[in-house]
Amino acid sequence: MDKLHSLYNFLDLAGTFVFAISGAVAAKQQRLDLFGICAIAFTVACGGGIIRDICIGAIPPAGLTNWHYLVTAIIASGMTIGLYAFVQRLNHPVQFFDALGLSLFAVTGAQKSLAYGHNAEVAVLLGITTAVGGGVLRDILLNRVPLILEKEIYASAALLGALIVVLGYYTKILSSDWISLIALITCFGLRLLALHYRWNLPNYSK
Amino acid sequence: MDKLHSLYNFLDLAGTFVFAISGAVAAKQQRLDLFGICAIAFTVACGGGIIRDICIGAIPPAGLTNWHYLVTAIIASGMTIGLYAFVQRLNHPVQFFDALGLSLFAVTGAQKSLAYGHNAEVAVLLGITTAVGGGVLRDILLNRVPLILEKEIYASAALLGALIVVLGYYTKILSSDWISLIALITCFGLRLLALHYRWNLPNYSK
Amino acid sequence: MDKLHSLYNFLDLAGTFVFAISGAVAAKQQRLDLFGICAIAFTVACGGGIIRDICIGAIPPAGLTNWHYLVTAIIASGMTIGLYAFVQRLNHPVQFFDALGLSLFAVTGAQKSLAYGHNAEVAVLLGITTAVGGGVLRDILLNRVPLILEKEIYASAALLGALIVVLGYYTKILSSDWISLIALITCFGLRLLALHYRWNLPNYSK
Repeated sequence: MDKLHSLYNFLDLAGTFVFAISGAVAAKQQRLDLFGICAIAFTVACGGGIIRDICIGAIPPAGLTNWHYLVTAIIASGMTIGLYAFVQRLNHPVQFFDALGLSLFAVTGAQKSLAYGHNAEVAVLLGITTAVGGGVLRDILLNRVPLILEKEIYASAALLGALIVVLGYYTKILSSDWISLIALITCFGLRLLALHYRWNLPNYSK
Repeated sequence: MDKLHSLYNFLDLAGTFVFAISGAVAAKQQRLDLFGICAIAFTVACGGGIIRDICIGAIPPAGLTNWHYLVTAIIASGMTIGLYAFVQRLNHPVQFFDALGLSLFAVTGAQKSLAYGHNAEVAVLLGITTAVGGGVLRDILLNRVPLILEKEIYASAALLGALIVVLGYYTKILSSDWISLIALITCFGLRLLALHYRWNLPNYSK
Repeated sequence: MDKLHSLYNFLDLAGTFVFAISGAVAAKQQRLDLFGICAIAFTVACGGGIIRDICIGAIPPAGLTNWHYLVTAIIASGMTIGLYAFVQRLNHPVQFFDALGLSLFAVTGAQKSLAYGHNAEVAVLLGITTAVGGGVLRDILLNRVPLILEKEIYASAALLGALIVVLGYYTKILSSDWISLIALITCFGLRLLALHYRWNLPNYSK
């Protein structure tokens, strides 16, 4: 399973990278300066995880201690600035990796909460928070209503992923690696299908 | 005093319920989807308490571990969606329960901070935070200036309630249950009078 | 070095005071009421430090336990309301003290993180957070894109100050008091120069 773990590390940084790109693009569109772009990129990439770590008592938060995340966010910001025309054409790949980041953060967020000895509800709620927290902070900082609360099935996919991790943890039917993989694929697949078919949750507006 | 404690538990969930309704109504008016409505309802109901618990070191926050709160918020969201026409006509009852939630959260917030061994200032500040934090988060997420900073005496009523709890704790003139009751009634009464007579703090605008 | 330490305490309260003034002025312009003005003033003055303390595990946050900060924020609010015409004319002194507060909070934020045993990255990131966090919270509450992400070199000056503290801590070339003084003067000088010559980071808008 060692290969699987290095795969996870790679995917974790890939998720961080893509979330950072989405933050940098939004910040650039708002005409923030160099520091502002890096700050928003880092916030989107690490904000959800930092809130999770504060809530489960993992002090200091991994997003602040592990330089991999900061460097990844800075590289993503640099790329967004230097290759903006290219990044703009990346719409589909960005959505693809964003869905991957969402799934991965939901799974690892729920796992880390369980690993710190917290209960099922904490794990599900903080799995969702890890996955969507950064995007919500981005929208708060850029002064708009968080997109994820309006869009196609997004946070709900994270909910499903976190739920599978928690169910697997308590039923112990499969090893935790297999459960993670299933949760990851389910969340990722649901998000891609929702994007493709424009599935939405009902919104009850008249 | 056992009856009083189950009364408190009932009032705590009643406060959670009414705060969740106010969040769900605001989210519905902004045309958020099903998940968005539940998320905002939960945030309004539990956000203040979660911030308090993080600040006093009660990890993980009760709002995340105790499923009563989550279920209450989901029921309130369902009711808001299903019975919207009815909920809209509830203006006076909602204000009544909102005032009750405000008072209750101010009192329990101050008490919990004292119970964790923190000083008078922490207890007063976090009593207010517990009471108004959820509403402030709602307004941040829905992208408007927090109402509670502009409105009739609201946070000030919470300040008074928390202050009475702290004064009672240090002077020990009465038992803590009696002090809580007095604080609750004072905060609640002040808020209702402010609503009825449209009392405002001075706002110095020209 | 005892004189230096009381100098630091004085500067710390001076920074708190000026940040509180900037919050109170912004809140007054938005026509918030008395409580709203005090709340925003306190948030600007102590918000960054409270976030830092939560992240490094200094529970409860100093901003909530030490009444000096609260009283300073209330005095600053009172002064802003009572002497508004006078405060408005203070533009240059306010910018001067704001730069001083920025430098001081960046230095003390980085130092406190190191004192709690955290690594260089945490110290730099939380040094910046301490310095600019209050201002970012002010802009979130007042519903605008945080100024500090758009303006002349501001957060970058805090970054430089925190960086010098951390470099000094690890190289141990000079005593920590001298390093703090150098970091303080560098950050303060850079900010004043940026204000005077309107230096900006590149912002890549087209």
